[in-house]
Formats: sequence, C-alpha cells, structure tokens
Amino acid sequence: MNPDITRERKNATFDVEKLTYILDGGPEKTKRRREIESLVFSDPDFNEEDPNFLSRSDRYDQAVRKSAQMILKLREYGIADPEEIYCYKKMVQGNFHEALGLHFVMFLPTLYSQCDAEQARKWLPLAESFQAIGTYAQTEMGHGTHLRGLETTATYDPATQEFVLNSPTISSIKWWPGGLGKTSNHAIVLAQLHTLGNCHGIHAFIVPIRDMSTHIPLPGIVVGDIGPKFGFSEVDNGFLKLENVRLPRDNMLMKYAKVEPDGTYLKPPSAKLTYGTMVFIRSLIVGESARALSKASIIAIRYSSVRHQSEIRAGEPEPQILDYQTQQYKLFPLLATAYAFTFVGQYMRETYQRISGDISDGDFSQLPELHALSAGLKAFTTWTTNAGIEVCRMSCGGHGYSRSSALPDIYVEFTPACTYEGENTVMMLQTARHLVKSYRQAKEGQQLSGTVSYLNDANLQRVQPQTVAARPTVVDVNDLASLVEVYKQRAAILVELSAKSIQQELQRRKCQEDAWNNSSIDLVRASDAHCHYVVVKLFTDKLGEIGDTAIHSVLSTLALLYALHGIKNNSGDFLQAGLLSVPQVLQVSVRVKELLSQLRPNAVALVDSFDINDKRLNSILGRYDGNVYEHLFEWARRSPLNATEVHESFHKYLKPLRSQL
Amino acid sequence: MNPDITRERKNATFDVEKLTYILDGGPEKTKRRREIESLVFSDPDFNEEDPNFLSRSDRYDQAVRKSAQMILKLREYGIADPEEIYCYKKMVQGNFHEALGLHFVMFLPTLYSQCDAEQARKWLPLAESFQAIGTYAQTEMGHGTHLRGLETTATYDPATQEFVLNSPTISSIKWWPGGLGKTSNHAIVLAQLHTLGNCHGIHAFIVPIRDMSTHIPLPGIVVGDIGPKFGFSEVDNGFLKLENVRLPRDNMLMKYAKVEPDGTYLKPPSAKLTYGTMVFIRSLIVGESARALSKASIIAIRYSSVRHQSEIRAGEPEPQILDYQTQQYKLFPLLATAYAFTFVGQYMRETYQRISGDISDGDFSQLPELHALSAGLKAFTTWTTNAGIEVCRMSCGGHGYSRSSALPDIYVEFTPACTYEGENTVMMLQTARHLVKSYRQAKEGQQLSGTVSYLNDANLQRVQPQTVAARPTVVDVNDLASLVEVYKQRAAILVELSAKSIQQELQRRKCQEDAWNNSSIDLVRASDAHCHYVVVKLFTDKLGEIGDTAIHSVLSTLALLYALHGIKNNSGDFLQAGLLSVPQVLQVSVRVKELLSQLRPNAVALVDSFDINDKRLNSILGRYDGNVYEHLFEWARRSPLNATEVHESFHKYLKPLRSQL
Repeated sequence: MNPDITRERKNATFDVEKLTYILDGGPEKTKRRREIESLVFSDPDFNEEDPNFLSRSDRYDQAVRKSAQMILKLREYGIADPEEIYCYKKMVQGNFHEALGLHFVMFLPTLYSQCDAEQARKWLPLAESFQAIGTYAQTEMGHGTHLRGLETTATYDPATQEFVLNSPTISSIKWWPGGLGKTSNHAIVLAQLHTLGNCHGIHAFIVPIRDMSTHIPLPGIVVGDIGPKFGFSEVDNGFLKLENVRLPRDNMLMKYAKVEPDGTYLKPPSAKLTYGTMVFIRSLIVGESARALSKASIIAIRYSSVRHQSEIRAGEPEPQILDYQTQQYKLFPLLATAYAFTFVGQYMRETYQRISGDISDGDFSQLPELHALSAGLKAFTTWTTNAGIEVCRMSCGGHGYSRSSALPDIYVEFTPACTYEGENTVMMLQTARHLVKSYRQAKEGQQLSGTVSYLNDANLQRVQPQTVAARPTVVDVNDLASLVEVYKQRAAILVELSAKSIQQELQRRKCQEDAWNNSSIDLVRASDAHCHYVVVKLFTDKLGEIGDTAIHSVLSTLALLYALHGIKNNSGDFLQAGLLSVPQVLQVSVRVKELLSQLRPNAVALVDSFDINDKRLNSILGRYDGNVYEHLFEWARRSPLNATEVHESFHKYLKPLRSQL
Repeated sequence: MNPDITRERKNATFDVEKLTYILDGGPEKTKRRREIESLVFSDPDFNEEDPNFLSRSDRYDQAVRKSAQMILKLREYGIADPEEIYCYKKMVQGNFHEALGLHFVMFLPTLYSQCDAEQARKWLPLAESFQAIGTYAQTEMGHGTHLRGLETTATYDPATQEFVLNSPTISSIKWWPGGLGKTSNHAIVLAQLHTLGNCHGIHAFIVPIRDMSTHIPLPGIVVGDIGPKFGFSEVDNGFLKLENVRLPRDNMLMKYAKVEPDGTYLKPPSAKLTYGTMVFIRSLIVGESARALSKASIIAIRYSSVRHQSEIRAGEPEPQILDYQTQQYKLFPLLATAYAFTFVGQYMRETYQRISGDISDGDFSQLPELHALSAGLKAFTTWTTNAGIEVCRMSCGGHGYSRSSALPDIYVEFTPACTYEGENTVMMLQTARHLVKSYRQAKEGQQLSGTVSYLNDANLQRVQPQTVAARPTVVDVNDLASLVEVYKQRAAILVELSAKSIQQELQRRKCQEDAWNNSSIDLVRASDAHCHYVVVKLFTDKLGEIGDTAIHSVLSTLALLYALHGIKNNSGDFLQAGLLSVPQVLQVSVRVKELLSQLRPNAVALVDSFDINDKRLNSILGRYDGNVYEHLFEWARRSPLNATEVHESFHKYLKPLRSQL
C-alpha cells in the first residue's frame, strides 16, 4: 500500500463503510453486492487481457464469449433478480459493454410487452433459448430522436396476408442499433404502417434477418457493422437495408394496434403506454451519470494523492498534487456532483416505481411531471458528467491520456448518453415545454403541485427581476435551505423570462412555432436552472435522512460546495435577478475556497465510499493501493507493439530509406 | 452536389476566395499552398485505407511508410521551405501524426542548436541521412512540466572520461517521448548532471539506444512502447530505462555548458537561450487550436446545412438543423472563435519573429511579456478549442460518434495540447505571475508597456469594483472598441482582486508560497480574463486591416458575436465589477440572438473560406459536396467487421450456447 494513500485514509473524519451502506441503500445490499462481485474475481474465465490491447474484431469476439458465459453462469448461480443480474454484469464488463445487450434490454422486453398471446407462445421460447437473438431497430441514418420522421415502410398486402418491408431511401437504412451488425438474427423493426392506402404511423415488426442455423443474411436483407466509433468498439452497432422483405401478418406486434387479415387497421387503446419506458430509461441514465462521474473522481482523486509534483514552498519535498488549490477546485466540485447525482438517481428510481404503481391503477396524473423531470435531468446530468470526466482526465496530466488510466474509456463509453434515448437539447426543450405550460397555468390561476409549484402566481410576483440594489438581500450563503430558495427563485425568473420572450415574438407577428424557436436559447437555460434547483433540493433533502453525525457533516459540506460552486459559475443569473448582492457573490468565492480546504482530508475517503472494485474500475491511476508507477510500467510492457523487439517497419521502410537518399 | 449546400453558397454575401486569401496571408500564398496540396491528391502512394480500419500495429506501419515516402518525395520535389514542408506534411497526414515527427521537430533542431563544432561534424550527417533516427527524451513517468524534478542521472567518471546514465527509480523512467518506443535508435536524454560530487542540474546527452544496423536495443537499454492512448495510435510514444549506460564524454551536448576531461564543470553563458524555443512552440499551438476548431466547425456547419430533422412549423418539410436557434447558438460562437484564434495565431507568429530579431540583437526586454502571453494564450486557446470540438461533435447527433465524421479523431489528436508543452493550469499561473508582478510595478509607479499597460495605476483607480448601481454605464454593446475597453477593465479588476487575495493571505501570516497557492483560483481567473481581452482586442485590430467591405462586414459581425457571447457567458464578472448594468446584460442576450440570425446565410461560406480540402479533413459529414448519407453507407461497408458475412464468434460461442442451456 502506498504510504501517502494510507495516510489519507487515516485522516478521514467519518466511517467509510457506513457511507457505502447509504449509497447502496443499506448494509444488506452492500453485502449482497459484494458477494455477487466476488463471483467474478475468482472466475478464471473473466481473467482476460485488457480490451485496449485487442483489435476490434478480437474485442467483439471477447465480448460475445463473455456474454455467452454470463448467461450460463447466471443460471448456474441462480441469480435472477434484475438488480443482481445488473450488478454481476457490470462487474464482468468493467468499463465496456455487452455484445447481447440489446437482446436483454430491448428485444425481450418488447416481446414481453407487445406480443399478443399467440405471438408470445411462438416468440418467447425462441428468444429465451437464444434461437432468436434480437435487437431493436428504430433509428435510421436520417432520423433519430424525431420518430415521426422515420421512413422505413411496411405495406400490407391482403392478397398474400403479408407485410412488405422496404428501405425506400438511403437515409431510411436502419443505423446504430447495437448487436444488429453481426450478432442478431432477428430485429424488431419500427416502420410506417401502410394498409388499404392509408398510413397509420410507426409500428413494430419482428423481422428475421439471418438464418437461425447458418447465421447467413436472409434474402432481401443487407446487414452489417456501421464501422468504428468513438467507444463501443466491442459492440456491432449495425445497419439494415430492407429490400421487399415479406413478413407474415402476425409478425407485426399486435398486443395493442392490429391489422386484420383483410387489411383493416385497429387503433391501440392508449398512446401513453410506451411513454413509460422512455421515462424509465432516462431515469436510469441519471444513475449512470452518477456512476461514471464517481469512477472518474475516484481515479483523479486517488492519483492526485500519490502524485507529487513541483513545489509550493521552496526547499520542501514536492507536495501531493491534491494540495494545490487549483486541483481541488477542479475535482472537489465534481466529487460533490457525483454524490448529488447518486442521490438524484435514487430519487428518480423511487419516484418511477411509485408512479408506475399509480399508472397500473390507471392514474396518469403524475406522468407529465415525471416525463419532464426525467427528460431534463437526463440532459442535465449527462452534460455535466460528460464535461466532468474530461476535467478529471486532464487533471491527471499526461497519464490521463493513457488507456491504462481508464479515463479515456470511461469518457468514450459514457458520452453517447448525451445523444441516445433523446438528444439532450431536445430533452431540455421538452422540459421547457412543461415549464412554460405550467407557468401559463399558474398565471391563469391554477394551483400547481410537484417540483413546478414554485411557478404558482403568488411566488412569481415576489421574484420579478429588478435592479440589484433595490432588492433587500436576506440570503444566508451558509444555509442550504436558503440556497435552495435562491435556486428556486432563479429558476422561476428564467422560466418567466423565456415565457416573455415567446410572448414578445408573438407580438412581432411571429407564428407560435417561430416564436418558440426564437426563444429556445432562453428555454434551454430555464430548463437547466430548473434541473439545477431540483438537484440542489434533492441533495439537501437527502441530508435529512442521515443520522450518523460524522457522515451528515461531511455530506453537508459537499452539498454546500455543490450549491455555492453552482452559484459562482452562474453568478450572472443571481446578480441579474437581484437574488444576491455583489458582496454576497464575493463571499461565495471565499466560502468555496474554505470548503475545498475543509474537504481535503476526507477526499480519498469520500471516493473510497463509492466502493468500486479495482477490477471493475480497471484503472492503474485509480488503484486502491495507490501503487501507480510500477503497474503502469508492467502494463505498458504488455502492449502489443512490444511483442517484437524490432517492428517490421524498420526493415520495410527505414533501412531502405537510407540507401535511397 | 447536394442542393441544400449549393443554395447556402448562393446566399453568401461575400467572396469566399478573397477571405481565404486573408486567412492564408495573400493570394500568392493560397496559390502555392494549393499547388503543394495537389501533389498529394495525385499521388497513389497516399491513397491509403482509413487508419480507423487498421490495427494499431498496422497504423504504425502505415505511418512509418508515409514518413519515409514523404522524405523522398520532398527531396524529389525540391520543397525545402519550412512552411511548405509543413503544408505538404499536413496534407499527407490528414488528422493524424508523423512517425518521425520528433526527429524533425526536436532531435535535429537540438543538434543544430546545442552541438559544438566537433559534435556537429559528427552527428549532423548521421541524423540528416537517417543513420541516426532520434527523439527527445525529457518527460519521465514521475515528472512532466516541472523539469527540475527529473530524476535521471548522468554521473561523470573521470577515470574513463565517460558519463554513466541511470534511471534510479521507476518514476525516473523516460515516458511519453514520441518515436521513442520502436522508431528511434538515438535519444537526446535530459538528465541531472553530476560531476566531482556536485549536481549541476538538467543537461542534454546523445544516447544511442538501438544498434544502427540491426535496430536491436543496446546493452543497458530497456525501451518500448507505452501502450495504447487516447489518440496518437500511429505514434510509438515510448519508455526508456537506463541501466548503467556508459557514454563518451563528448556525447554531452557542449555548445553552452561543458564538462572538461578532468570533470570540471563550465556553466553556460545564459539561461535564456532555451526559453525562446518554448515560446515558439506555444505560439504555434495557438495556430493549431485555430486549425482544429476550424475543422470541427466546417464539419458541424456543413452537416447541419444538409441534415433535416423534426419540425419548426407543423406540416412544413423538416428544416435544416442549422435553422434551429439552439444549433446556431452552439456553432456560430465557435465559428467566431475559430476566426479569432486564426488571427491571434497570425499575431503570435509575427510577434515571435519580431522579438526573435530583437533577441538575436541581444535585446531580451520583450521576452517576459511574450513568454507570459504565449503561456496564457496556449492554455486559453487549447481549453476553448478542446471543449469546442466536443460541442461540434455532439451537435452532429449520433453520426458525430462515428469515426467517419472525423470529429472523434480531431478531438483525441488535439486534446493532448492541453497538457503537452506546459500543462494548462501551470501555464495560466505563469501568466498570472507576470500579471501580478506588473500590477505591483504599476503600484510602485513604474510605467508599463505592452498588453499589460492597462495595469498602469491611473487606469486601475478608474476601475475599482463597486456596487453596480453606483457606476454610470457608458458602454455601447454594439461598438467593438467599447467592448475591448470593458474586457480590459474586467481583466484589470480580476488581476487586482487576485493580488489583493495574496495580500490578505500574507496578512494572515501565511508564507508567500501558501499565499500564492491559496489565491490560485483567482490567479487563473485573472489570466483567463487577460487572455480573453487580448483575443477580443486582436480580433478587433484585425478588422482595421480589411479593405473589402463585404468581408469587413461579416467579420465584424463575427467579432461582435465573439465579444458579446463572452460577456453573456461571464456576465457575473461584468455585473460584479459594475462594468455593465442589468439592462445591458439583457440587451447583450438579445443582440446575440440577432447576430446568430444575421450570420445564418453566411455560415457555410465562412467555413468554406478556411479552404480545408476534403482529403485533409477526411470527414464524411464535412464533405464539401454535402453528399453525406451515400458515403456514410459506402464507408461502413468497408468496415473490417464486414470482411466476412458471419463472424467466427457465432460458431464459437452463440451456436454452442443454445445446446448448453
């Protein structure tokens, strides 16, 4: 164990293990998680080479092997609880992905939820036994988030009782679905349904794409890998071009909408049912953001505690780089953010479960609020995390660029979350739509509830923007409740500002849509402020649940840092709205520095509490024992370029060059 | 040609070609650049496969081949001017790097500048004929920017008149030098010189590391590749461990410092001579930032002009995504920044040349200012560009993640610039040191000149921070000269604030060094504001040189957007200092929106003016002809995973899985 990191751990003021229980949701959960994780450590099948040393084809090969092994082992161990499966898989995958991911998270769930009884009898046994390996082919080359724009067609032919599927343009080629390129032999294809001369919009079809026995693509199917990407090297994101592919009528998923043998179309009873899945996945992404930022913080903070560099005081030994104020200023606000997002992720999971219950009972009243919240928080947390991972990476100096640090991998595997499951700017605007609608309802005298209740008219009248000097300032920058209040007021003012911008555009005779577009910078900013308020509030609320005094104290410091750092970075908003005075903003800067010093002794313990095992973290810089340099050397020597002492290019090009000059 | 992009070009209000001349520095320069570039198009040797499809070993192999070919062809064509060589090489390399890069930019120049006459006679012919292929081994595993901390030792043994070189610790292993792992047979090694019992600090030694004929590592040399990284896949950044390596006395570079045969050490006449090279390289990086951001803007803006998505007005065709205000708000400020940095890069090159002249004449008076400016601008431009490339990438939706977009490559090849040649935070603090020193000189009554002259005492007294309402606001947010003035005042206030923070820390009985460290957040912010002011000023100054009315008009709009966008993003600073009032900040937001609309018709023409050829850009999304989708499909089909219809993993793992369940 590196003596620096041992000393750091001794200096902690709280019990790391107890904080881990809080993050896991209780000591039993921590225990069970560790049991499951230990199944992977002791398993020689998962003791494989670093994927960074492999070619793309070998990475894919390794991922398929691991996917197949995981299926067998999970059955052998009798692990069936979804959370436990998730935990086991995360441990096997480390920072990477599963080859059969889409089969489990999209293909099977879609069959479960959208097959009618007869279809379920046919397809579920095939899919559960991996005779049918599937994916979900929605996105096309030309259309992503805007689903109505999809171009693939499924035209019903009553004469043969078949659907004819086509990719009528280049841009209609299905593009991006994971596992589509090489792994799957079936795809749920989303296509515009045409029957009896009418188009009924997007519906789902089960399309066989490869022979189940030989795996050779079927007639009319052009399928393959979309090529190398930024990350996801082990995943065969694929393309699919459909050329007059004929499907039996009952390959359309018919639990809700139906096409009768004669071509008659029957509408689904409600459109809200698919709405819930998106909300669920976006809520999960909030938790993924927390985990990615936790990993990056662990690596950067542990490394900063063992890296010595330069000098603060002349003649003294080189300090740990974690002693530099600039380094603390980069990392501790991100550490605080990782905690904040972890608690927001817990809240979103609980809220989803609660509202799912309501929905099952036929009560949809909370869905719009949850939809807006999950869209905005998905964007807010992924953007913050995306930038934060890179700050962590760059705070590690040169070694942050080495794949051995894991930081490049964490970044490239995470960054697509800003785009998939709803492009972030579009998400922010969806939230803004809910905010503006709520604002107008409040103006019309409706009483709002939930996170938008601050928009109730009475509150708004209190927070009109006005000149700074005119407002009496009663904010206590050391009191979280008071800070939650100013974040709330900032959000209210920015929502109002964006609603007024729309109003002004309309007064200039712009149509509704142009007025919206011309206000969209303000609308995104309002959503951002709303999400920021929600995060500060949920972090503050969480503190109320924590009994342990030492942990309560350190988490309160983190929450205060999170809130004040956000004010410092957005001080223009708070000054402009007259929510804070100039001396208060100066005071915030001073307090931020004090909080950095205050957190310094607990920094390593706070990342230890995330309890992410070395095997899962897969980072030499982030090793628990802090023994960085010797392992960096050992790792580098295994680099494939070192397989031979002399690379063949010397004999092929460099030696001959000399004689040609 | 895609009709959308053709229409965009027709809408431009200025002559693209004339703007290209301004960027190149004159029509003759444009002509010559294009001549050189065309040598590459017509050359079948450089018509190679996308490196993204190759294994790391094959990428390295390809890079070595191209390096060798470039040497031969440049001689054949008789291209010898450094700028023309640079231009040719950039065209061959596209977004990637040269295998022999360090031989040309560090090994040869070091020999030229630091060999004494006898050494030059021996080593230059060897290096120029590639018998000796070299690199520059400075950075160690444990030390980068802080050179004094380097641990490698060179101990003089008068008995044999040899130096004995050692890597005494793991952390002293040389780490990162490009070309060190496999390509080079020599390295300039920086080591602590010990002779007659004294250490004289860092000196440079020529160390043979591989046999010149067989390329096998020499005794006492442990050398290899440091493993895969975030980018630079074709470069063999290497490690070097020295185990009692004995060198003849004259392998120490002896033009300045010397060790006599008896071990007597002779000091170099001046330490400032090496100082100039760093300044030069950092100045160049400013230009590299401009180029990287130009490339990213070209790709994102061209793609946004051909991508149609979603709807603004119901029932109308899907708009180009460049019509969304949020998309313009992401991209146009970055386009303005790319222009700003291009002009700053031109200024830095010219200034360096001017001051180099002074230095040759023995006048070092301007060097501290240039040193501070190049350090700060290196950090300011690379950080901005780094974040900007990712904004461009994410603005392209899913396809931005594909390697075919080139955006991932541009990012990973650029991002190390934030760390190499001086870690950015350290650079910002070096600039801050100059600013605080200048501030104190001004306080003591000295009259400052150059970019820091705004710190002269008289100016400072005008800009004391005070409450917002108390200050009369005379700023015209539509007038660039007025905006340069507020940026200047903001910088002055933030320099003063950081100097006062140091003062306060000292009054609390902190030592100088701790006072500095405890103020470093403020110091970085002051440097940032200083650099921001310089960029706004240089952009504004450049406008004065432009005669063409149409170009002057569009560049003025860009400059105004650059300045106002910076104010909007840092509005807290301007409000806090009382430089702008609340209504003015609101007005800035409105103006920014107007400027986006104003730039919209010229966006594609403005990126066309960068005149970066498709071959060099290597981006399907950024193609000049806008024909994105068909080429994306064609590129994907060449992906190595598509070499076989059925990947072997199906037979190895998926088929057997079924029978094991």
